[in-house]
Amino acid sequence: MAVARRIDQLLSGGSLIRRMFNQGQQLKERYGADNVFDLSIGNPDLSPPPEFYRAAEKILGESIPGKHAYMNNAGLVEVREKIAQRVRREQDVDISAGGIIMTVGAGSALSLAFHCLVNPGDRVLVPAPAFVAYRNYLSVHGGVLEIVPGLPDFSIDLNALEEMIDETTAAVIINSPNNPSGTIYPEKSLADLGQLLERLSRLHGRRIYLISDEPYREIIYRKEPVPPVFQAYPHSIICYSYSKSLSIPGERIGWAAVHPLAEDRDKIVAGMTGATLNMGYTNAPALMQRIVGEIDGCAVDVERYRRRRDLLADGLREIGYEFELPQGAFYMFPKVPRGYGGDDDMAFCERLVEEKILTVPGSGFAMPGYFRISYCVDERIIQGSLPGFRRAFETT
Amino acid sequence: MAVARRIDQLLSGGSLIRRMFNQGQQLKERYGADNVFDLSIGNPDLSPPPEFYRAAEKILGESIPGKHAYMNNAGLVEVREKIAQRVRREQDVDISAGGIIMTVGAGSALSLAFHCLVNPGDRVLVPAPAFVAYRNYLSVHGGVLEIVPGLPDFSIDLNALEEMIDETTAAVIINSPNNPSGTIYPEKSLADLGQLLERLSRLHGRRIYLISDEPYREIIYRKEPVPPVFQAYPHSIICYSYSKSLSIPGERIGWAAVHPLAEDRDKIVAGMTGATLNMGYTNAPALMQRIVGEIDGCAVDVERYRRRRDLLADGLREIGYEFELPQGAFYMFPKVPRGYGGDDDMAFCERLVEEKILTVPGSGFAMPGYFRISYCVDERIIQGSLPGFRRAFETT
Repeated sequence: MAVARRIDQLLSGGSLIRRMFNQGQQLKERYGADNVFDLSIGNPDLSPPPEFYRAAEKILGESIPGKHAYMNNAGLVEVREKIAQRVRREQDVDISAGGIIMTVGAGSALSLAFHCLVNPGDRVLVPAPAFVAYRNYLSVHGGVLEIVPGLPDFSIDLNALEEMIDETTAAVIINSPNNPSGTIYPEKSLADLGQLLERLSRLHGRRIYLISDEPYREIIYRKEPVPPVFQAYPHSIICYSYSKSLSIPGERIGWAAVHPLAEDRDKIVAGMTGATLNMGYTNAPALMQRIVGEIDGCAVDVERYRRRRDLLADGLREIGYEFELPQGAFYMFPKVPRGYGGDDDMAFCERLVEEKILTVPGSGFAMPGYFRISYCVDERIIQGSLPGFRRAFETT
Repeated sequence: MAVARRIDQLLSGGSLIRRMFNQGQQLKERYGADNVFDLSIGNPDLSPPPEFYRAAEKILGESIPGKHAYMNNAGLVEVREKIAQRVRREQDVDISAGGIIMTVGAGSALSLAFHCLVNPGDRVLVPAPAFVAYRNYLSVHGGVLEIVPGLPDFSIDLNALEEMIDETTAAVIINSPNNPSGTIYPEKSLADLGQLLERLSRLHGRRIYLISDEPYREIIYRKEPVPPVFQAYPHSIICYSYSKSLSIPGERIGWAAVHPLAEDRDKIVAGMTGATLNMGYTNAPALMQRIVGEIDGCAVDVERYRRRRDLLADGLREIGYEFELPQGAFYMFPKVPRGYGGDDDMAFCERLVEEKILTVPGSGFAMPGYFRISYCVDERIIQGSLPGFRRAFETT
């Protein structure tokens, strides 16, 4: 034995998304990148908005004491104050800089929250369809992810959730706008969820926290903003990333906001702050903190994603695919056509690979019978994929 | 119960460095920052070299596809190739980009290595004096840090190490140039250590890895470079950070290099790459990767640190303090004066606080009887602290 046991498990597993990614690399090598329609990953192709570059230049040019130095592990206080202002406005709660922790993307915000809330053996629940890498983050802290089966309209099945919650449940995760479905949970759903968690926390004698993963908050195709989860349940932590709003997923910058009235709020904030050291990253990257502090609220041009969504939706609808029109994010999650036994998403995605189209089977999001199309790519790729989608639909 | 048990432990503990930091904040509020001599933390005051800003501007201005996008979790291949070239030259081994993983500072490099090498309950050994935050990184993966007692000349006590190693030992960490002593372990020590680890790995039927934490590699006060650990023992991982060489600790950028002949090398590289996801940070910040790829090898003006070292050394020597002259890093680790019972470093550092001088007791580095002075501060602060050091030396 040389490496740790967990690594053998890690290497023998491998996600469906990664498997598609590797298959895609092979296809691209054989046929050329331009002849492969890669709709598999959520790596946005839009450039960051011009404000991003202006802010970067300004900060790099300015004389700021300790510009790239260590800071409080929770992040720069002036940046956290700017974010607290935004959260106050969006969530209508009295939160200050002291409730904000700057993080290395939403992934590390989730990881810090798990570190604080989850004892070894504890369960964390997430409604399907879901981004299952939560499982990886949790595994480090000894927690176990369990999936609440999904409903066909992608709403949260509160009855199923209630049945699954017990005294080992540390938290529930929601992700709205949702990856992979594009669903935005309505205010009423959040309120019902909040009431359920309050009732079950009392019943089981343990506070069940709500963790809201919101990297797609600004990528929405309607006027009304994403409803405020802090209004639905005070024992909540919001995990945010600028990866999608600013199109900078490689830069790893985000934050966590802890509701001011959350049970054990002070311990959670101090614990998440201290955990930045335990996790090995100390603090979020300083320059990116300063940039998002300057331009928080800025976002890429969402209309471009809307045009792509509509192009894809019109094309697939005409062919006969069934799907919910995404309200946010840049994914569509159609049903597998009936010719494939109704739910063999693995077989259908293999069939699409024959058409040089890369997507991800719904099984990768704990919801077989569906498949995810990522449309954060050039319109030509979407347009070019439609004949292949038609052939796969018509000839199994 | 609401938060995880580990958080209560985390919050009840608190490091000596943090305690000094908090005490320092209080002093500064009371007397004004200019009237406090803060020699407690390793937060370098030098600005990054001009090359850093030139590279940043160049990259921000260039049109690069996917400039801020997701990438292979191990980092940008062109940057890893640049770093592999450097490691090839410095360590004289045939390493390629495939052996380099870009990380969120050296802390995350260490954390990824622990994730890969340490099973719950395994022990990792480090010779004192040592940066004990390794304990925090390890705790996340269920590992236990144990300290090999230090020798007065700060060399590694190989006999003590041999006695402590058993079949539960996953790895040994060394840190050279050393925080807090400024020692550089000589080539012969590394060779002896390598032979010992090889012999004990065979004896215990388990590969014992060597993890070399090298953030101070460029901060040295002699011509000969830090000896190559890869020559001493093939089962080694180097963890590096640009925090000190470029004076950018807030930016969180570093790398890990896995020796090409390390046992289970392929699993370690794949495991550390996959673990970036598990740990929640996905990849090292993209812009900083590109910058260090441009200017790897650049460093701040080490002569400035040498002048500070000499100013401090001359001053303390004249008063009568006993210490080893640091060969690298920007810390000095003198003996507590005899008037304090010879080893009451806590009492002596409290006495220095009365002089408004902030240092860290050696107990914070698992080596009581000493105290750490950080000299990465302006010369005026060093000069200004000397009368206080004299009074504390002369009047207990």
